[in-house]
Amino acid sequence: MKFSKHIAQLTLDCVIFGFHHKKLKLILSKLKLAKEIYALPGGFILQEEDIEDAAKRILFERTGIQDLYLEEFGTFGRANRISDEDFQLFSGIAGDLYPDVEPPINENNQKMRIVSIGYYALVDFEKVIPQKIDLDESCDWYDIKELPNMIFDHQEMAHKGLQVLRENLDKKLLFNNLLPETFTMKNVQELYETVYDKPFPANNFQKKMLDLQILERLDKKYTGAKSKAPYLYRLKPRT
Amino acid sequence: MKFSKHIAQLTLDCVIFGFHHKKLKLILSKLKLAKEIYALPGGFILQEEDIEDAAKRILFERTGIQDLYLEEFGTFGRANRISDEDFQLFSGIAGDLYPDVEPPINENNQKMRIVSIGYYALVDFEKVIPQKIDLDESCDWYDIKELPNMIFDHQEMAHKGLQVLRENLDKKLLFNNLLPETFTMKNVQELYETVYDKPFPANNFQKKMLDLQILERLDKKYTGAKSKAPYLYRLKPRT
Repeated sequence: MKFSKHIAQLTLDCVIFGFHHKKLKLILSKLKLAKEIYALPGGFILQEEDIEDAAKRILFERTGIQDLYLEEFGTFGRANRISDEDFQLFSGIAGDLYPDVEPPINENNQKMRIVSIGYYALVDFEKVIPQKIDLDESCDWYDIKELPNMIFDHQEMAHKGLQVLRENLDKKLLFNNLLPETFTMKNVQELYETVYDKPFPANNFQKKMLDLQILERLDKKYTGAKSKAPYLYRLKPRT
Repeated sequence: MKFSKHIAQLTLDCVIFGFHHKKLKLILSKLKLAKEIYALPGGFILQEEDIEDAAKRILFERTGIQDLYLEEFGTFGRANRISDEDFQLFSGIAGDLYPDVEPPINENNQKMRIVSIGYYALVDFEKVIPQKIDLDESCDWYDIKELPNMIFDHQEMAHKGLQVLRENLDKKLLFNNLLPETFTMKNVQELYETVYDKPFPANNFQKKMLDLQILERLDKKYTGAKSKAPYLYRLKPRT
Protein backbone atom coordinates (compact mmCIF):
# COMPACT_ATOMS: atom_id res chain seq x y z
CA MET A 1 0.00 0.00 0.00
CA LYS A 2 1.26 3.44 -0.91
CA PHE A 3 0.95 6.00 1.85
CA SER A 4 -0.02 9.59 1.28
CA LYS A 5 0.90 12.42 3.63
CA HIS A 6 -2.76 12.67 4.60
CA ILE A 7 -5.29 9.95 5.38
CA ALA A 8 -6.90 9.57 1.97
CA GLN A 9 -10.55 8.94 2.80
CA LEU A 10 -11.12 10.90 6.00
CA THR A 11 -11.65 14.62 6.47
CA LEU A 12 -12.69 16.89 9.27
CA ASP A 13 -15.14 19.78 8.95
CA CYS A 14 -15.78 22.54 11.45
CA VAL A 15 -18.90 24.47 12.41
CA ILE A 16 -17.39 27.60 13.97
CA PHE A 17 -20.09 29.48 15.84
CA GLY A 18 -20.01 33.16 16.78
CA PHE A 19 -22.73 35.39 18.28
CA HIS A 20 -23.30 38.90 16.96
CA HIS A 21 -26.23 41.32 17.13
CA LYS A 22 -28.71 38.64 18.23
CA LYS A 23 -27.64 36.36 15.40
CA LEU A 24 -25.90 32.99 15.59
CA LYS A 25 -23.31 32.98 12.85
CA LEU A 26 -20.88 30.44 11.45
CA ILE A 27 -17.80 30.75 9.27
CA LEU A 28 -18.14 29.60 5.66
CA SER A 29 -15.77 29.61 2.70
CA LYS A 30 -16.99 30.70 -0.68
CA LEU A 31 -15.16 28.28 -2.96
CA LYS A 32 -13.18 29.34 -6.05
CA LEU A 33 -15.74 27.99 -8.50
CA ALA A 34 -17.81 29.34 -11.36
CA LYS A 35 -20.94 28.41 -9.42
CA GLU A 36 -21.61 30.09 -6.06
CA ILE A 37 -20.98 27.28 -3.59
CA TYR A 38 -19.95 27.46 0.05
CA ALA A 39 -18.20 25.02 2.38
CA LEU A 40 -17.52 24.53 6.06
CA PRO A 41 -13.85 25.10 6.95
CA GLY A 42 -12.20 21.69 6.92
CA GLY A 43 -9.40 19.58 5.59
CA PHE A 44 -7.63 16.26 5.51
CA ILE A 45 -5.86 14.76 8.54
CA LEU A 46 -2.11 14.18 8.53
CA GLN A 47 -0.94 10.58 8.94
CA GLU A 48 0.82 11.30 12.22
CA GLU A 49 -1.61 13.76 13.74
CA ASP A 50 -4.13 13.16 16.53
CA ILE A 51 -7.58 13.96 15.18
CA GLU A 52 -8.17 16.55 17.87
CA ASP A 53 -4.88 18.20 16.89
CA ALA A 54 -6.06 18.27 13.27
CA ALA A 55 -9.21 20.06 14.44
CA LYS A 56 -7.14 22.58 16.42
CA ARG A 57 -4.84 23.13 13.44
CA ILE A 58 -7.73 23.79 11.06
CA LEU A 59 -9.50 26.03 13.57
CA PHE A 60 -6.35 28.06 14.20
CA GLU A 61 -5.81 28.41 10.45
CA ARG A 62 -9.28 29.90 10.04
CA THR A 63 -9.65 31.96 13.22
CA GLY A 64 -6.12 32.76 14.46
CA ILE A 65 -7.19 31.45 17.90
CA GLN A 66 -5.32 28.64 19.66
CA ASP A 67 -7.42 27.75 22.69
CA LEU A 68 -11.03 27.89 21.60
CA TYR A 69 -13.79 25.55 22.79
CA LEU A 70 -14.23 22.62 20.43
CA GLU A 71 -16.09 19.32 20.51
CA GLU A 72 -16.67 16.47 18.08
CA PHE A 73 -20.35 16.05 17.23
CA GLY A 74 -20.47 13.03 14.95
CA THR A 75 -19.22 11.29 11.85
CA PHE A 76 -20.81 11.85 8.46
CA GLY A 77 -20.50 8.68 6.46
CA ARG A 78 -23.34 8.17 4.03
CA ALA A 79 -21.88 6.46 0.96
CA ASN A 80 -23.53 9.04 -1.31
CA ARG A 81 -22.79 12.15 0.77
CA ILE A 82 -20.72 13.55 -2.09
CA SER A 83 -22.68 13.92 -5.31
CA ASP A 84 -20.93 13.33 -8.64
CA GLU A 85 -21.34 17.00 -9.51
CA ASP A 86 -19.90 18.23 -6.21
CA PHE A 87 -17.10 15.73 -6.49
CA GLN A 88 -16.08 16.99 -9.92
CA LEU A 89 -16.31 20.63 -8.87
CA PHE A 90 -14.24 20.10 -5.74
CA SER A 91 -11.62 17.85 -7.33
CA GLY A 92 -10.90 20.64 -9.78
CA ILE A 93 -9.72 22.99 -7.03
CA ALA A 94 -8.46 20.58 -4.36
CA GLY A 95 -5.71 18.99 -6.44
CA ASP A 96 -3.21 21.80 -5.82
CA LEU A 97 -3.78 21.80 -2.08
CA TYR A 98 -3.63 18.03 -1.61
CA PRO A 99 -1.43 16.64 -4.40
CA ASP A 100 -0.74 13.54 -2.27
CA VAL A 101 -4.36 12.41 -2.17
CA GLU A 102 -4.84 12.82 -5.93
CA PRO A 103 -6.00 11.47 -8.31
CA PRO A 104 -9.31 10.84 -6.56
CA ILE A 105 -10.68 8.49 -9.22
CA ASN A 106 -9.40 4.98 -9.80
CA GLU A 107 -8.95 3.01 -13.02
CA ASN A 108 -12.63 1.97 -12.97
CA ASN A 109 -13.72 5.60 -12.78
CA GLN A 110 -14.88 5.01 -9.23
CA LYS A 111 -14.75 8.17 -7.15
CA MET A 112 -12.98 8.29 -3.83
CA ARG A 113 -15.22 7.67 -0.84
CA ILE A 114 -14.72 10.28 1.87
CA VAL A 115 -15.99 10.20 5.45
CA SER A 116 -15.98 13.40 7.50
CA ILE A 117 -15.75 14.00 11.23
CA GLY A 118 -17.75 17.02 12.44
CA TYR A 119 -16.43 19.39 15.09
CA TYR A 120 -18.11 22.50 16.41
CA ALA A 121 -16.20 25.38 17.95
CA LEU A 122 -17.31 28.44 19.92
CA VAL A 123 -15.55 31.77 19.56
CA ASP A 124 -15.89 35.40 20.60
CA PHE A 125 -17.14 36.96 17.37
CA GLU A 126 -15.30 40.24 18.03
CA LYS A 127 -11.95 38.48 18.18
CA VAL A 128 -12.11 36.57 14.91
CA ILE A 129 -11.47 37.68 11.36
CA PRO A 130 -12.22 34.61 9.21
CA GLN A 131 -9.16 33.62 7.15
CA LYS A 132 -9.43 32.17 3.66
CA ILE A 133 -7.20 29.43 2.29
CA ASP A 134 -6.15 28.63 -1.28
CA LEU A 135 -9.46 26.93 -2.13
CA ASP A 136 -11.48 29.99 -1.18
CA GLU A 137 -12.55 33.06 -3.02
CA SER A 138 -13.55 34.51 0.36
CA CYS A 139 -14.27 33.47 3.93
CA ASP A 140 -16.75 35.18 6.20
CA TRP A 141 -19.49 34.94 8.84
CA TYR A 142 -22.98 33.84 7.77
CA ASP A 143 -26.27 33.66 9.68
CA ILE A 144 -27.16 30.02 10.37
CA LYS A 145 -30.79 30.88 9.58
CA GLU A 146 -29.87 31.96 6.06
CA LEU A 147 -27.38 29.38 4.86
CA PRO A 148 -26.30 29.68 1.22
CA ASN A 149 -25.89 26.80 -1.26
CA MET A 150 -23.42 24.40 0.34
CA ILE A 151 -21.24 21.61 -1.04
CA PHE A 152 -21.50 17.89 -0.07
CA ASP A 153 -23.62 17.38 3.08
CA HIS A 154 -22.23 20.50 4.74
CA GLN A 155 -25.67 22.00 5.29
CA GLU A 156 -26.72 18.86 7.18
CA MET A 157 -23.48 19.04 9.18
CA ALA A 158 -24.14 22.68 10.11
CA HIS A 159 -27.66 21.84 11.31
CA LYS A 160 -26.43 18.83 13.30
CA GLY A 161 -23.79 21.10 14.87
CA LEU A 162 -26.53 23.52 15.93
CA GLN A 163 -28.61 20.65 17.34
CA VAL A 164 -25.69 19.48 19.49
CA LEU A 165 -24.91 23.06 20.58
CA ARG A 166 -28.54 23.32 21.74
CA GLU A 167 -28.15 20.11 23.75
CA ASN A 168 -24.91 21.33 25.33
CA LEU A 169 -25.07 25.13 25.74
CA ASP A 170 -27.05 25.01 28.98
CA LYS A 171 -26.07 21.52 30.15
CA LYS A 172 -22.35 22.27 29.94
CA LEU A 173 -22.70 26.05 30.52
CA LEU A 174 -20.81 26.97 27.38
CA PHE A 175 -22.27 30.47 26.97
CA ASN A 176 -19.13 32.36 28.01
CA ASN A 177 -17.25 30.88 25.03
CA LEU A 178 -19.54 32.84 22.71
CA LEU A 179 -19.26 36.14 24.63
CA PRO A 180 -16.47 38.64 25.36
CA GLU A 181 -14.70 38.30 28.70
CA THR A 182 -17.17 40.65 30.41
CA PHE A 183 -20.87 40.74 29.58
CA THR A 184 -24.20 41.91 30.88
CA MET A 185 -26.98 39.58 31.97
CA LYS A 186 -28.91 40.78 28.94
CA ASN A 187 -26.07 39.62 26.66
CA VAL A 188 -26.35 36.10 28.11
CA GLN A 189 -30.12 36.10 27.86
CA GLU A 190 -30.04 37.25 24.23
CA LEU A 191 -27.50 34.53 23.45
CA TYR A 192 -29.80 31.87 24.93
CA GLU A 193 -32.79 33.30 23.08
CA THR A 194 -30.86 33.23 19.82
CA VAL A 195 -29.46 29.70 20.15
CA TYR A 196 -32.75 28.19 21.34
CA ASP A 197 -34.87 30.47 19.15
CA LYS A 198 -37.38 31.24 21.93
CA PRO A 199 -37.84 33.88 24.65
CA PHE A 200 -36.48 33.45 28.19
CA PRO A 201 -38.32 35.65 30.77
CA ALA A 202 -35.70 38.08 32.16
CA ASN A 203 -36.35 37.68 35.91
CA ASN A 204 -36.31 33.88 35.88
CA PHE A 205 -33.29 33.86 33.64
CA GLN A 206 -31.28 36.22 35.84
CA LYS A 207 -32.16 34.24 38.97
CA LYS A 208 -31.17 30.95 37.36
CA MET A 209 -27.83 32.32 36.19
CA LEU A 210 -27.00 33.90 39.56
CA ASP A 211 -28.00 30.73 41.43
CA LEU A 212 -25.32 28.85 39.52
CA GLN A 213 -22.76 30.90 41.47
CA ILE A 214 -20.31 30.88 38.59
CA LEU A 215 -20.55 34.61 37.77
CA GLU A 216 -18.62 37.44 39.37
CA ARG A 217 -20.31 40.86 39.37
CA LEU A 218 -18.09 43.76 38.26
CA ASP A 219 -18.71 47.49 37.85
CA LYS A 220 -21.67 48.85 36.01
CA LYS A 221 -21.37 49.24 32.30
CA TYR A 222 -21.10 52.91 31.45
CA THR A 223 -23.82 53.77 28.99
CA GLY A 224 -24.31 57.50 29.55
CA ALA A 225 -27.55 57.03 31.55
CA LYS A 226 -25.89 55.90 34.76
CA SER A 227 -28.99 55.12 36.82
CA LYS A 228 -30.08 52.41 34.41
CA ALA A 229 -26.63 51.07 33.63
CA PRO A 230 -26.51 47.25 33.79
CA TYR A 231 -23.88 45.39 35.75
CA LEU A 232 -21.08 43.64 33.96
CA TYR A 233 -20.24 40.04 34.84
CA ARG A 234 -17.48 37.63 34.09
CA LEU A 235 -16.89 33.98 34.96
CA LYS A 236 -15.43 33.49 38.42
CA PRO A 237 -11.80 32.43 38.23
CA ARG A 238 -11.45 28.69 38.80
CA THR A 239 -10.21 27.86 42.27
CA MET B 1 -4.58 5.72 -6.19
CA LYS B 2 -5.38 2.05 -5.85
CA PHE B 3 -8.70 1.31 -4.24
CA SER B 4 -9.27 -1.49 -1.79
CA LYS B 5 -12.65 -3.08 -1.17
CA HIS B 6 -12.63 -1.54 2.29
CA ILE B 7 -11.66 1.97 3.41
CA ALA B 8 -8.05 1.34 4.39
CA GLN B 9 -7.59 3.56 7.42
CA LEU B 10 -11.00 3.61 9.07
CA THR B 11 -12.66 0.97 11.24
CA LEU B 12 -15.73 0.73 13.39
CA ASP B 13 -15.85 -0.88 16.84
CA CYS B 14 -18.93 -1.78 18.85
CA VAL B 15 -19.66 -1.80 22.56
CA ILE B 16 -22.60 -4.21 22.73
CA PHE B 17 -24.25 -3.94 26.13
CA GLY B 18 -26.44 -6.57 27.78
CA PHE B 19 -27.89 -6.72 31.31
CA HIS B 20 -27.85 -9.96 33.28
CA HIS B 21 -28.11 -10.79 36.99
CA LYS B 22 -27.45 -7.20 38.11
CA LYS B 23 -24.39 -6.96 35.90
CA LEU B 24 -23.77 -4.79 32.87
CA LYS B 25 -22.00 -6.93 30.32
CA LEU B 26 -20.47 -6.37 26.90
CA ILE B 27 -19.45 -8.72 24.12
CA LEU B 28 -15.72 -9.28 23.61
CA SER B 29 -13.72 -11.47 21.27
CA LYS B 30 -10.77 -13.41 22.57
CA LEU B 31 -8.33 -13.12 19.67
CA LYS B 32 -6.50 -16.09 18.12
CA LEU B 33 -3.14 -15.13 19.61
CA ALA B 34 -0.53 -16.75 21.80
CA LYS B 35 -1.10 -13.96 24.36
CA GLU B 36 -4.54 -13.61 25.97
CA ILE B 37 -5.88 -10.44 24.36
CA TYR B 38 -9.48 -9.35 23.82
CA ALA B 39 -11.11 -6.97 21.36
CA LEU B 40 -14.39 -5.17 20.84
CA PRO B 41 -16.36 -6.59 17.90
CA GLY B 42 -15.52 -4.43 14.90
CA GLY B 43 -14.30 -4.29 11.37
CA PHE B 44 -13.48 -2.27 8.30
CA ILE B 45 -16.09 -0.35 6.31
CA LEU B 46 -16.87 -1.24 2.71
CA GLN B 47 -16.21 1.44 0.09
CA GLU B 48 -19.87 1.65 -0.90
CA GLU B 49 -21.50 1.20 2.49
CA ASP B 50 -23.08 3.87 4.70
CA ILE B 51 -21.26 3.90 8.03
CA GLU B 52 -24.46 3.19 9.92
CA ASP B 53 -25.06 0.19 7.64
CA ALA B 54 -21.55 -1.06 8.41
CA ALA B 55 -22.41 -0.84 12.12
CA LYS B 56 -25.64 -2.78 11.56
CA ARG B 57 -23.79 -5.41 9.51
CA ILE B 58 -21.15 -5.93 12.18
CA LEU B 59 -23.74 -6.01 14.97
CA PHE B 60 -25.89 -8.55 13.11
CA GLU B 61 -22.81 -10.70 12.47
CA ARG B 62 -22.07 -10.83 16.20
CA THR B 63 -25.57 -10.95 17.71
CA GLY B 64 -27.91 -12.34 15.02
CA ILE B 65 -30.20 -9.36 15.66
CA GLN B 66 -31.24 -6.96 12.91
CA ASP B 67 -33.05 -4.12 14.61
CA LEU B 68 -31.18 -3.38 17.81
CA TYR B 69 -30.67 0.06 19.34
CA LEU B 70 -27.37 1.57 18.23
CA GLU B 71 -25.74 4.97 18.42
CA GLU B 72 -22.39 6.46 17.49
CA PHE B 73 -20.50 7.77 20.51
CA GLY B 74 -17.32 9.26 19.09
CA THR B 75 -14.25 8.85 16.96
CA PHE B 76 -11.01 7.47 18.34
CA GLY B 77 -8.14 9.06 16.50
CA ARG B 78 -5.04 9.44 18.61
CA ALA B 79 -2.07 8.95 16.28
CA ASN B 80 -0.53 6.44 18.73
CA ARG B 81 -3.73 4.54 19.61
CA ILE B 82 -2.25 1.35 18.16
CA SER B 83 1.02 0.33 19.81
CA ASP B 84 3.74 -1.31 17.72
CA GLU B 85 3.27 -4.54 19.62
CA ASP B 86 -0.52 -4.62 19.17
CA PHE B 87 -0.08 -3.72 15.52
CA GLN B 88 2.24 -6.65 14.90
CA LEU B 89 0.03 -9.07 16.81
CA PHE B 90 -3.11 -8.01 15.00
CA SER B 91 -1.55 -7.83 11.52
CA GLY B 92 -0.61 -11.46 11.91
CA ILE B 93 -4.23 -12.59 12.13
CA ALA B 94 -6.07 -9.87 10.15
CA GLY B 95 -4.35 -10.51 6.80
CA ASP B 96 -6.59 -13.44 5.88
CA LEU B 97 -9.78 -11.57 6.70
CA TYR B 98 -8.84 -8.34 4.94
CA PRO B 99 -6.41 -9.24 2.14
CA ASP B 100 -7.34 -6.03 0.32
CA VAL B 101 -6.10 -3.72 3.06
CA GLU B 102 -2.77 -5.55 3.37
CA PRO B 103 0.17 -5.10 3.61
CA PRO B 104 -0.29 -2.55 6.41
CA ILE B 105 3.31 -1.34 6.37
CA ASN B 106 4.78 0.82 3.61
CA GLU B 107 8.24 0.82 2.07
CA ASN B 108 9.58 3.03 4.90
CA ASN B 109 8.36 0.54 7.49
CA GLN B 110 5.72 3.02 8.55
CA LYS B 111 2.67 1.33 10.02
CA MET B 112 -0.80 2.07 8.77
CA ARG B 113 -2.63 4.71 10.75
CA ILE B 114 -6.15 3.59 11.67
CA VAL B 115 -8.99 5.71 13.05
CA SER B 116 -11.99 4.00 14.64
CA ILE B 117 -15.59 5.09 15.01
CA GLY B 118 -17.25 3.90 18.23
CA TYR B 119 -20.84 2.64 18.31
CA TYR B 120 -22.71 1.32 21.31
CA ALA B 121 -25.64 -1.06 21.01
CA LEU B 122 -28.23 -2.28 23.52
CA VAL B 123 -29.61 -5.83 23.39
CA ASP B 124 -31.78 -8.20 25.39
CA PHE B 125 -29.13 -10.46 26.95
CA GLU B 126 -31.41 -13.50 26.81
CA LYS B 127 -31.80 -13.23 23.05
CA VAL B 128 -28.13 -13.05 22.09
CA ILE B 129 -25.54 -15.78 21.72
CA PRO B 130 -22.29 -13.95 20.85
CA GLN B 131 -20.90 -15.18 17.52
CA LYS B 132 -17.20 -15.45 16.83
CA ILE B 133 -15.55 -14.64 13.49
CA ASP B 134 -12.35 -15.95 11.92
CA LEU B 135 -10.10 -13.74 14.04
CA ASP B 136 -11.54 -15.07 17.30
CA GLU B 137 -10.73 -18.00 19.46
CA SER B 138 -14.01 -17.33 21.27
CA CYS B 139 -16.62 -14.62 21.74
CA ASP B 140 -18.63 -14.09 24.91
CA TRP B 141 -20.17 -11.73 27.46
CA TYR B 142 -17.88 -10.02 30.00
CA ASP B 143 -18.64 -7.82 33.00
CA ILE B 144 -17.68 -4.21 32.24
CA LYS B 145 -16.35 -3.92 35.79
CA GLU B 146 -13.85 -6.71 35.17
CA LEU B 147 -12.49 -6.07 31.70
CA PRO B 148 -9.65 -8.33 30.57
CA ASN B 149 -6.49 -7.24 28.73
CA MET B 150 -7.70 -5.46 25.58
CA ILE B 151 -6.02 -4.58 22.29
CA PHE B 152 -5.42 -1.03 20.94
CA ASP B 153 -7.48 1.58 22.86
CA HIS B 154 -10.49 -0.75 23.14
CA GLN B 155 -10.63 -0.47 26.93
CA GLU B 156 -10.88 3.32 26.62
CA MET B 157 -13.59 2.88 23.96
CA ALA B 158 -15.58 0.56 26.26
CA HIS B 159 -15.42 3.08 29.11
CA LYS B 160 -16.41 5.96 26.85
CA GLY B 161 -19.34 3.85 25.61
CA LEU B 162 -20.45 3.35 29.23
CA GLN B 163 -20.12 7.07 29.92
CA VAL B 164 -22.36 7.92 26.97
CA LEU B 165 -24.84 5.19 27.95
CA ARG B 166 -25.03 6.84 31.41
CA GLU B 167 -25.73 10.20 29.79
CA ASN B 168 -28.44 8.71 27.59
CA LEU B 169 -30.17 5.85 29.45
CA ASP B 170 -32.48 8.11 31.42
CA LYS B 171 -32.49 11.13 29.11
CA LYS B 172 -33.57 9.07 26.09
CA LEU B 173 -35.39 6.36 28.12
CA LEU B 174 -33.43 3.52 26.59
CA PHE B 175 -33.96 0.99 29.41
CA ASN B 176 -36.40 -1.24 27.54
CA ASN B 177 -33.70 -2.05 24.96
CA LEU B 178 -31.74 -3.84 27.69
CA LEU B 179 -34.74 -5.78 29.05
CA PRO B 180 -37.05 -8.53 27.74
CA GLU B 181 -40.36 -7.41 26.27
CA THR B 182 -42.09 -7.67 29.66
CA PHE B 183 -40.41 -6.75 32.93
CA THR B 184 -41.13 -5.90 36.54
CA MET B 185 -40.51 -2.49 38.07
CA LYS B 186 -37.75 -4.11 40.09
CA ASN B 187 -36.04 -5.22 36.87
CA VAL B 188 -35.97 -1.60 35.67
CA GLN B 189 -34.74 -0.33 39.02
CA GLU B 190 -31.95 -2.91 39.14
CA LEU B 191 -30.93 -1.97 35.61
CA TYR B 192 -30.67 1.71 36.60
CA GLU B 193 -28.76 0.80 39.75
CA THR B 194 -26.33 -1.29 37.73
CA VAL B 195 -25.71 1.22 34.95
CA TYR B 196 -25.33 4.20 37.30
CA ASP B 197 -23.66 2.14 40.04
CA LYS B 198 -25.75 3.67 42.83
CA PRO B 199 -29.03 2.89 44.64
CA PHE B 200 -32.39 4.32 43.51
CA PRO B 201 -35.00 4.36 46.34
CA ALA B 202 -37.83 2.03 45.22
CA ASN B 203 -40.84 4.27 45.91
CA ASN B 204 -39.44 7.33 44.18
CA PHE B 205 -38.23 5.23 41.30
CA GLN B 206 -41.60 3.56 40.72
CA LYS B 207 -43.41 6.89 40.88
CA LYS B 208 -41.02 8.49 38.42
CA MET B 209 -41.38 5.63 35.95
CA LEU B 210 -45.18 5.53 36.18
CA ASP B 211 -45.41 9.33 35.82
CA LEU B 212 -43.72 9.03 32.44
CA GLN B 213 -46.90 7.27 31.21
CA ILE B 214 -44.97 5.11 28.79
CA LEU B 215 -45.55 1.78 30.59
CA GLU B 216 -48.52 -0.52 30.27
CA ARG B 217 -49.34 -2.70 33.29
CA LEU B 218 -50.00 -6.37 32.51
CA ASP B 219 -50.84 -9.38 34.70
CA LYS B 220 -48.92 -10.24 37.80
CA LYS B 221 -45.82 -12.30 37.41
CA TYR B 222 -46.46 -15.80 38.72
CA THR B 223 -43.87 -16.55 41.37
CA GLY B 224 -45.60 -19.13 43.58
CA ALA B 225 -46.36 -16.65 46.37
CA LYS B 226 -49.23 -14.92 44.64
CA SER B 227 -50.00 -12.24 47.21
CA LYS B 228 -46.55 -10.70 46.78
CA ALA B 229 -46.30 -11.24 43.04
CA PRO B 230 -45.06 -8.11 41.21
CA TYR B 231 -46.83 -6.67 38.20
CA LEU B 232 -45.32 -7.09 34.78
CA TYR B 233 -45.02 -4.07 32.50
CA ARG B 234 -44.20 -3.44 28.91
CA LEU B 235 -43.78 -0.29 26.83
CA LYS B 236 -47.07 1.12 25.58
CA PRO B 237 -47.47 0.58 21.86
CA ARG B 238 -46.68 3.76 19.92
CA THR B 239 -49.78 5.53 18.68
